[in-house]
Amino acid sequence: MDKEKIEKVKSLIRTIPDFPTKGIMFRDLTTAFKNPEGIAIIAEDIEEKYAHLGVTKVVGIEARGFIGGSILAHELGAGFVPLRKPGKLPADTISKTYAKEYGTDTIEIHRDAITPDDVVVIHDDLLATGGTMLAAYELVKSMNPKKIYIDFIVELSALEGRKLFPADVPVNSMIVY
Amino acid sequence: MDKEKIEKVKSLIRTIPDFPTKGIMFRDLTTAFKNPEGIAIIAEDIEEKYAHLGVTKVVGIEARGFIGGSILAHELGAGFVPLRKPGKLPADTISKTYAKEYGTDTIEIHRDAITPDDVVVIHDDLLATGGTMLAAYELVKSMNPKKIYIDFIVELSALEGRKLFPADVPVNSMIVY
Repeated sequence: MDKEKIEKVKSLIRTIPDFPTKGIMFRDLTTAFKNPEGIAIIAEDIEEKYAHLGVTKVVGIEARGFIGGSILAHELGAGFVPLRKPGKLPADTISKTYAKEYGTDTIEIHRDAITPDDVVVIHDDLLATGGTMLAAYELVKSMNPKKIYIDFIVELSALEGRKLFPADVPVNSMIVY
Repeated sequence: MDKEKIEKVKSLIRTIPDFPTKGIMFRDLTTAFKNPEGIAIIAEDIEEKYAHLGVTKVVGIEARGFIGGSILAHELGAGFVPLRKPGKLPADTISKTYAKEYGTDTIEIHRDAITPDDVVVIHDDLLATGGTMLAAYELVKSMNPKKIYIDFIVELSALEGRKLFPADVPVNSMIVY
């Protein structure tokens, strides 16, 4: 992907100090998504990375991961699968509970959403400590797809979230801070 | 839109009795979104409806409205704007509280997300009683865009949700039960 285009998207991201808590520099992607050029570049980058990999399903993590994830699925001619908070998915689910800074969180996916024939991209907007994506990865992995790719628009490299994932699992991000 | 294609999407929707509560026939769109043909037809229908209307922003209602909404924005070359639950948007917001069956709910949008130059589609996956979409409409309307369209993939016509909206506001749905 053209460096200038990546810089363009970076320039569209708004940084908000002390959100949601003091000391956090929040990278707000809504200002990139509300810009048609921002969406177009994000979609182009995504297509470049995955177009020839035979992707059949894109899993988006609730809620911000639904935005890029559904565009990615449509661009690739793949299906879109939501990974949601507990109690939101109506059919039979499998779930995973994982530790957060304070307490735990749980994510769910429909049991019939992924099959062993699938090549999967799991997408979220931003990689910070990586706890949610690791739980998502382990949940999807338990469904035995052929291959899993992990994808973010933004990566906060100082938090070293990508170290959580096995070396043979590709972890892609468009913009690194 | 070709009737056969609409029937195809309809055939992909899963109906789940008694979710989230007894007596509700839940129309589960996840089975349409996980199917590449389902996504493609939904995107095609959306493009047919709005391609020549000068749409500049698509507002998606958290969380399921983010899926079709972001695809719609990308298809139309418009920006995508999330309408979210309280406390999720990091910058300055305006909000609207509305009555639900039990208690109230609140939705928020970034104050700078819509301008008077915008032509807006507000999208959600499903029209039932319409309370959330009415609040969304009133919130967006207070930002004075040029024009507002309201869009759903599925409409449950027996609940007469579309009657809530002014007669000059187009309310579109792809599939009507």
